[in-house]
Amino acid sequence: MTPERLARLDGVLNRRQPDLAILAENLHKPRNLSAVVRTCDAVGIPEVHIVPGKDRPRRHWHTSQGAEKWVTPVIHDDIDSACASLKSDGFTILGAHLSDRAVDYRDVDYTVPTALLLGTEAFGVTDDALARVDTEIVIPMMGMSQSLNVSVACAVVLYEALAQRRAAGLYESSRMAPAKHRKTRFEWLHP
Amino acid sequence: MTPERLARLDGVLNRRQPDLAILAENLHKPRNLSAVVRTCDAVGIPEVHIVPGKDRPRRHWHTSQGAEKWVTPVIHDDIDSACASLKSDGFTILGAHLSDRAVDYRDVDYTVPTALLLGTEAFGVTDDALARVDTEIVIPMMGMSQSLNVSVACAVVLYEALAQRRAAGLYESSRMAPAKHRKTRFEWLHP
Ligand SMILES: C[S@@+](CC[C@H](N)C(=O)[O-])C[C@H]1O[C@@H](n2cnc3c(N)ncnc32)[C@H](O)[C@@H]1O
Ligand SMILES: C[S@@+](CC[C@H](N)C(=O)[O-])C[C@H]1O[C@@H](n2cnc3c(N)ncnc32)[C@H](O)[C@@H]1O
Repeated sequence: MTPERLARLDGVLNRRQPDLAILAENLHKPRNLSAVVRTCDAVGIPEVHIVPGKDRPRRHWHTSQGAEKWVTPVIHDDIDSACASLKSDGFTILGAHLSDRAVDYRDVDYTVPTALLLGTEAFGVTDDALARVDTEIVIPMMGMSQSLNVSVACAVVLYEALAQRRAAGLYESSRMAPAKHRKTRFEWLHP
Repeated sequence: MTPERLARLDGVLNRRQPDLAILAENLHKPRNLSAVVRTCDAVGIPEVHIVPGKDRPRRHWHTSQGAEKWVTPVIHDDIDSACASLKSDGFTILGAHLSDRAVDYRDVDYTVPTALLLGTEAFGVTDDALARVDTEIVIPMMGMSQSLNVSVACAVVLYEALAQRRAAGLYESSRMAPAKHRKTRFEWLHP
């Protein structure tokens, strides 16, 4: 490994945001999950929490190439245990959902520990999941289409989070717990 | 057509932003173009300008369903004539491009007539196109991946444009030229 590559890895690691996460419910199109993971890497999200669909095999995480290498999948049995686990870690759960209750995604504070829940391509966030979110958020739609592509919606929200976190200086010094930082660094250096 | 449907169509038409456009260079993955068009509809973009790749057939625009029905494709022979045409219509051309010259996408004024140039999946914006853009803009990347998915990058920029335009009141009253407004309304009512 060249010194430049090592410096790059360390720079990226030191910008990781351990208190920003995605919770993806039943996303079944691999290309959507891939685009989500690529955006997560870009905004510094270290873990994507996944609740696989009931009848679906757990999708293989392609760690050999692409952004999947830099983002860790955390698979949960169901939405209940996923939300309970995130909440016990101090996360606020924001549900991206097109409802009348939802607040504009720009009117939310993303500098606190935040998990963004995304719904399935076809049916959106399930009622089970909605019952567990702290706040529903919506991205305004001015046209005829009813919703955005899920990876697009994910990115629009995450880049608002990035802007707020950058303004708050959260990318300026390492924020991972030392043990996790060491473990991740080891994995990145020895693939 | 129900009165509700008519009111919906008129509402959407009156929020259309004739001075906001996309210029897509050689996008060849149909699913990326579809996601771009869906986002364009959502932020009120009436026209997507397309320069097809040299050896590629012009892709069929699926007007039968989906967002393609509400957004008009404008096909250009090459990037020169596309840019010349947009500039003669008063557009500033912003090139979404990962370069050192590029300014942060949030530091740009999107309330002026703006065309957003997007590059191809594999190779990005061509040199020919770069020579014609007014400003290069970049979306910050904090991770290991070198770029975002093109439909994701498109949405991140367009939702910044939407936020600025909403703050400036540009969605509050009809902004299409009367002849174009009548023509579009006719097409929407009589598919
Ligand atoms: C294609 S949409 C699902 C549409 C589904 N028919 C529904 O009614 O919810 C997939 C997911 O993307 C997210 N999403 C898409 N557009 C959104 C918007 N405008 N605001 C908030 N979330 C959105 C939501 O998480 C949604 O569950
Ligand atoms: C997958 S990228 C192309 C990557 C290509 N390898 C390159 O070096 O340009 C496709 C298009 O998405 C847009 N894009 C992707 N990420 C971007 C970013 N971070 N900032 C600005 N534009 C971006 C650009 O228009 C780019 O041409």
